[in-house]
Amino acid sequence: MAMAAAVQPVIKVAALCGSLRKASFNHGLIRACIEVCNESINNMSIEYIDISALPFLNTDLEINGSYPTPVESFRSKILEADSILFASPENNFSLSAPLKNAIDWASRPPNVWAGKPAAIISTGGGFGGGRAQYHLRQVGVFLDLHFINKPEFYLNAFQPPAKFDSDGNLIDLEAKERLREVLLSLQAFTLKFKNSP
Amino acid sequence: MAMAAAVQPVIKVAALCGSLRKASFNHGLIRACIEVCNESINNMSIEYIDISALPFLNTDLEINGSYPTPVESFRSKILEADSILFASPENNFSLSAPLKNAIDWASRPPNVWAGKPAAIISTGGGFGGGRAQYHLRQVGVFLDLHFINKPEFYLNAFQPPAKFDSDGNLIDLEAKERLREVLLSLQAFTLKFKNSP
Amino acid sequence: MAMAAAVQPVIKVAALCGSLRKASFNHGLIRACIEVCNESINNMSIEYIDISALPFLNTDLEINGSYPTPVESFRSKILEADSILFASPENNFSLSAPLKNAIDWASRPPNVWAGKPAAIISTGGGFGGGRAQYHLRQVGVFLDLHFINKPEFYLNAFQPPAKFDSDGNLIDLEAKERLREVLLSLQAFTLKFKNSP
Amino acid sequence: MAMAAAVQPVIKVAALCGSLRKASFNHGLIRACIEVCNESINNMSIEYIDISALPFLNTDLEINGSYPTPVESFRSKILEADSILFASPENNFSLSAPLKNAIDWASRPPNVWAGKPAAIISTGGGFGGGRAQYHLRQVGVFLDLHFINKPEFYLNAFQPPAKFDSDGNLIDLEAKERLREVLLSLQAFTLKFKNSP
Repeated sequence: MAMAAAVQPVIKVAALCGSLRKASFNHGLIRACIEVCNESINNMSIEYIDISALPFLNTDLEINGSYPTPVESFRSKILEADSILFASPENNFSLSAPLKNAIDWASRPPNVWAGKPAAIISTGGGFGGGRAQYHLRQVGVFLDLHFINKPEFYLNAFQPPAKFDSDGNLIDLEAKERLREVLLSLQAFTLKFKNSP
Repeated sequence: MAMAAAVQPVIKVAALCGSLRKASFNHGLIRACIEVCNESINNMSIEYIDISALPFLNTDLEINGSYPTPVESFRSKILEADSILFASPENNFSLSAPLKNAIDWASRPPNVWAGKPAAIISTGGGFGGGRAQYHLRQVGVFLDLHFINKPEFYLNAFQPPAKFDSDGNLIDLEAKERLREVLLSLQAFTLKFKNSP
Repeated sequence: MAMAAAVQPVIKVAALCGSLRKASFNHGLIRACIEVCNESINNMSIEYIDISALPFLNTDLEINGSYPTPVESFRSKILEADSILFASPENNFSLSAPLKNAIDWASRPPNVWAGKPAAIISTGGGFGGGRAQYHLRQVGVFLDLHFINKPEFYLNAFQPPAKFDSDGNLIDLEAKERLREVLLSLQAFTLKFKNSP
Repeated sequence: MAMAAAVQPVIKVAALCGSLRKASFNHGLIRACIEVCNESINNMSIEYIDISALPFLNTDLEINGSYPTPVESFRSKILEADSILFASPENNFSLSAPLKNAIDWASRPPNVWAGKPAAIISTGGGFGGGRAQYHLRQVGVFLDLHFINKPEFYLNAFQPPAKFDSDGNLIDLEAKERLREVLLSLQAFTLKFKNSP
């Protein structure tokens, strides 16, 4: 009995990347998260969800309350997840269009984001994606996402020493350790929501 | 035994108003919340915390790690609270100075906001204070506040029928019912955080 | 001589709509602007620029510094314009993906938005698109757009009396007059930039 | 005749600092701007405007349409200025309370900010004050301020080498040169508005 209570549920995290570039650094952050999670975090699994097949949001494409096939498939993945990990590039001081598009499709009724815990990570020049993160947090109010507050993860991709190799793989150990802390924070936050009445 | 588990803890809410005007409509929202809470919500109590005695934030006023007396007293009130209710007017599309000032004093080390659930209510012209609410949410990321997402409460104070009397008391029944829903949402959210490990 | 100085240049405005829906209300705002401009504003012409043919932003599609054909064509239209009119729906408290996507393509080097005056109009539920407008203004800092401050134009599409017919045409006369004031403000602002050294 | 046209008007800039600390780094930025302006920019003068004597905004203090003496005096200074330079610290991811307070007093009718060009500079940890700058830009929409877009000026005060001495004086030459570029941009932008019809 006591043992049953001690078994921690496995948390399923859906990870989305806002950049469609093959060598995207933000995609590299997700690969690093998956690696870190597999190596050193128990009871948590991260699945990368590809958003590149989605059409542009257009509610004219919704026929009799059903969505285009790639949209339905994407929405199922989000619905099954316990929490969400956004790798969100900053484009022109806000969200990338592909990420916003995916977000908007999954918000169509019924909103499959509702009530899920989430975390944001980003990399880029300047603030390392920071401005986009605050826009995403505002979007999350309507989606009813619950973001962890800390730690925040921004990474200036261009300050020496090199952070990524030419394939977009994260090679900075300190950044990997910071990603690990984000994942542990997301795990603890998700458990708060799962365990409460 | 089983009964002990069924006793719900009383949640103490600290309520702050960002306007110093005597007949402030936002202060009127807090009075209405206190009334609604006393009348129809169990296991929750709201205390109005006056912020008008605080000096302007100036870290030169911190002597040997202690704060001016009104600041210490304000910080204690926040520390004791389980969750926070902000009545946040919108001044020039952002937070009021008195509210931001109170927020900043309580964030000085140790940050007494950390980890608390919170809700925002506002009234005014135009969007009813909406723009200030999103700025406050961004502030909350650094403070480590956890805001409820829904329901949002904005009230256009000037659209007929009259929402407030000349003393700034809320007289609109529909708005009172919406405030009640905010309080219930804040209560449920606070319990999630209190009850989880 | 004096007469030459009195000839006001014709201002060319490029108008973009962030919704791809056929009966989009935001598209209806642009049609109303074009009508109002033709009927009662001299020396100004508005051209609707369709953004539906653009692919999702992906810098892997840039080959030897050239862009996909629909992107090149879109960028030319923006480059030729004196100023920009954005009809910007609010989706989940921020910009629509199709609009952000168009913005991002035209920002690729050389950034063809740079230095242009601009105005934003929006319609929808709630704040009538207001939250998206402030995100777009932040985007404009990086794009180097100069937005008019006043009048702001939001329109709650669902408050009675009816604002649009079933084809998405604006039928509200007061709203048309407010659009006219936006256009006159954009014209005056554009002249400030054109006429100065 | 030709000479008359060549005489450039002197632009008067009002400079405000959002921190009340004696050794404030943001105040140090303003001192550096004044020095740079005096040494190497013609036809521009910067006056530091102290905001520490202002009471907290409270419209109950407005008697028969007149303002408290320090408020009247502050409002006159803003009214006389051609453009505004804000040194805006970031406190808890938004504007400082003292700066917001000054802004709000000067916005009371008649709004003395209306139509003026402006620039923002900031220093601090993390993004060097960046988050506060975007909140200030949103405030500026209602104030009807016209901010320059570029260059943006943020300075991380704590990254080596040392940026300020113990009195809060800027000692970093590269930062001074960047401030000079901000001032030249503000000057050019102000002339656009002064010279146009």
